[in-house]
Amino acid sequence: MTCIVQKYGGSSVADVGRLRKIARGIADLKRSGADIAVVVSAMGKTTDQLVAMSREISSLPPRREMDMLLSTGERITMAMLCMALHEQGIDAVSLTGSQAGIITNDRHNDAQVIEVRPFRVQDEMANGKVVIIGGFQGVSYKRDITTLGRGGSDTTAVALAAALNADRCEIYSDVDGVYSADPAVVADARHLPEVSFPVMQEMSTAGAKVLHASAVQFAKEKNIAIYARATFSPGRETIVRQLSPGAVVGVQAVVSEKQVERVRLQAADIHGCFKNTVDYLEKNQISIKEVNFIDTTAAGEQTSASFIVSTKDIYGWERIKSVLLNDLKEKIVFDTNLAALSLIGEGLNRNNLTLLETLGLLGDNRITVLGMATTAFRISLLVSADQIEKSVELCHTRWVDNSGG
Amino acid sequence: MTCIVQKYGGSSVADVGRLRKIARGIADLKRSGADIAVVVSAMGKTTDQLVAMSREISSLPPRREMDMLLSTGERITMAMLCMALHEQGIDAVSLTGSQAGIITNDRHNDAQVIEVRPFRVQDEMANGKVVIIGGFQGVSYKRDITTLGRGGSDTTAVALAAALNADRCEIYSDVDGVYSADPAVVADARHLPEVSFPVMQEMSTAGAKVLHASAVQFAKEKNIAIYARATFSPGRETIVRQLSPGAVVGVQAVVSEKQVERVRLQAADIHGCFKNTVDYLEKNQISIKEVNFIDTTAAGEQTSASFIVSTKDIYGWERIKSVLLNDLKEKIVFDTNLAALSLIGEGLNRNNLTLLETLGLLGDNRITVLGMATTAFRISLLVSADQIEKSVELCHTRWVDNSGG
Repeated sequence: MTCIVQKYGGSSVADVGRLRKIARGIADLKRSGADIAVVVSAMGKTTDQLVAMSREISSLPPRREMDMLLSTGERITMAMLCMALHEQGIDAVSLTGSQAGIITNDRHNDAQVIEVRPFRVQDEMANGKVVIIGGFQGVSYKRDITTLGRGGSDTTAVALAAALNADRCEIYSDVDGVYSADPAVVADARHLPEVSFPVMQEMSTAGAKVLHASAVQFAKEKNIAIYARATFSPGRETIVRQLSPGAVVGVQAVVSEKQVERVRLQAADIHGCFKNTVDYLEKNQISIKEVNFIDTTAAGEQTSASFIVSTKDIYGWERIKSVLLNDLKEKIVFDTNLAALSLIGEGLNRNNLTLLETLGLLGDNRITVLGMATTAFRISLLVSADQIEKSVELCHTRWVDNSGG
Repeated sequence: MTCIVQKYGGSSVADVGRLRKIARGIADLKRSGADIAVVVSAMGKTTDQLVAMSREISSLPPRREMDMLLSTGERITMAMLCMALHEQGIDAVSLTGSQAGIITNDRHNDAQVIEVRPFRVQDEMANGKVVIIGGFQGVSYKRDITTLGRGGSDTTAVALAAALNADRCEIYSDVDGVYSADPAVVADARHLPEVSFPVMQEMSTAGAKVLHASAVQFAKEKNIAIYARATFSPGRETIVRQLSPGAVVGVQAVVSEKQVERVRLQAADIHGCFKNTVDYLEKNQISIKEVNFIDTTAAGEQTSASFIVSTKDIYGWERIKSVLLNDLKEKIVFDTNLAALSLIGEGLNRNNLTLLETLGLLGDNRITVLGMATTAFRISLLVSADQIEKSVELCHTRWVDNSGG
């Protein structure tokens, strides 16, 4: 029997009317004979409201308690969607992340899925039920409720699809797939019907919001095709799957991320200083990226290290910064108001032409590049936050519009 | 070390300001050296709002899903209260009913606590933490989330106090204890500083809202004294505990319950008819009370049965009634718009004088008594709903105001 895992994002389940519409679609699919598991997000702005309420009590609430609080959002959705399915004459049952066997580590607010034990999901499916699962949440080996971080419902869906050996994983949101740039920034952004796993991973990591990076990682490992679709306007879709190498070459998308800061360390004891800083960030469960470490013992040269932090989902970032400043004094500097521009595509590192030409293009337009990092699928450039839209437009016009695709 | 279990009702935790106030009180108590477990209800009208939202989807939602939905309310409160305690410098941890070991049967929406396994609560207490527990919820042996029915947070608190062998159980709400009548109905209702377990049980069953009947049952079995207090106006309290027999005799309180219906069955096959009806109600998890069963085979006499149903917390009562009417036709009659008046006190059945005099008093005031039932601690009379306030006043004046207490 066909086994399908679907995931509906917050805007798709924002109110009772939308839940009813989704329930009708699921009922039709069920009657066609499929086994269905549905992963849901919190309704509309529920998560934001819960976060706002917690901030009224505490500027830096305990992470475990944030997870207890936020996990209620998806539970409301899943119970409501079950009720809507019963009204359609479809037998359905809701399961929490814990009941669905989503086992995570205990990194609260940003937990990693360690294992999926989908026995109960399979039992309920075998009994003919549609299974509705709360996304974004799991349970740690300590039996505490954890959350997977923003966008974690994608991860729940893909991890579950992998564990169930599902035929496909459908991710429904308010956009009909993946674009060559954010359509809100670039008017002629192009819809991409097909994207490879590594390109999608780089896009998500670099700031594209359609799919969560760790979800794509799961899909890649288990080779589960992801169908990204718009919930209420069927038509176009983006399929994320394994593509033969060389099928597409060149820049496929231009992605940007705001609320980025660079942390710079300069000290004689750079090793200890770097270790202490990263240890402290790790203790606060903050990931660093694009590390640049220069250690030289040559006389007169200063040793330095720098890395990038994406600050938008960090609780209490200012408090954490003031602790570091107080501790390290002039050894640490925070470059704020930055943004990261990323060109994503296959084979970008085959030569340096893309990088060189991009640097020239930005320089001609008086945009200063403050840092850079490259991988096989990505070229990222750090620019001032107020120049990011302009940078995206320039690069999109140069690399995507002219690619003749 | 002193071990105290506290419970805060919905109005006590209605907003962030109140949570902060409560947190300050708990912090002071903790610093005085006590081990503390705090059971919380959902914030303010949260439960009502969730019920209303579910009704938009379905008039008779699956009971299991209602429990999944409603249990989120307490989880929000407990996470928020934990955060507020952390702000006070107190280490606290929130536990769901399941994590706190509240094991129930699987009667969804009205589950019975079967067992409490408070190991994790004890572990966290031993680590010096204040433990915040979601009231009203448990977990069934099928590992499904259950709720204990309205007011079930009281039961959570007392059952936990019993399992922890706590020194006392404090129930905080917006009233400072138990009164001889509802002060909203009877202006000179009298505050009762002390009430015995059986009298409190009868009061709760008969409609008094301060304490949940099954909570009092737990307290009686384990002899845990309950202190009913007002959260934000300390002063008076009611202590519910074991009292020596004969310490108080006579009517102590007059309690009323609205939204009561009487179901009457008349049929030749009264046994089968009664059994089928009660079976169907049981399947819908509806409790019946005050059963009146008259079976006589004497020629010409009709056999009949009747019982009382308290309809206010039944989901889909009208739908259930129409099924029964359709099935039993003229064999079943529903007497609607009724209310139950109950006189509660010790030794009410020592003679019939209280009953006889009450019947006379109501008759003199043209109030028709439509049914009656008595126990050792209670005399209940069924009257028309529009005469209930008048009946309560008359009885309170006659039996409580004149008791010289």
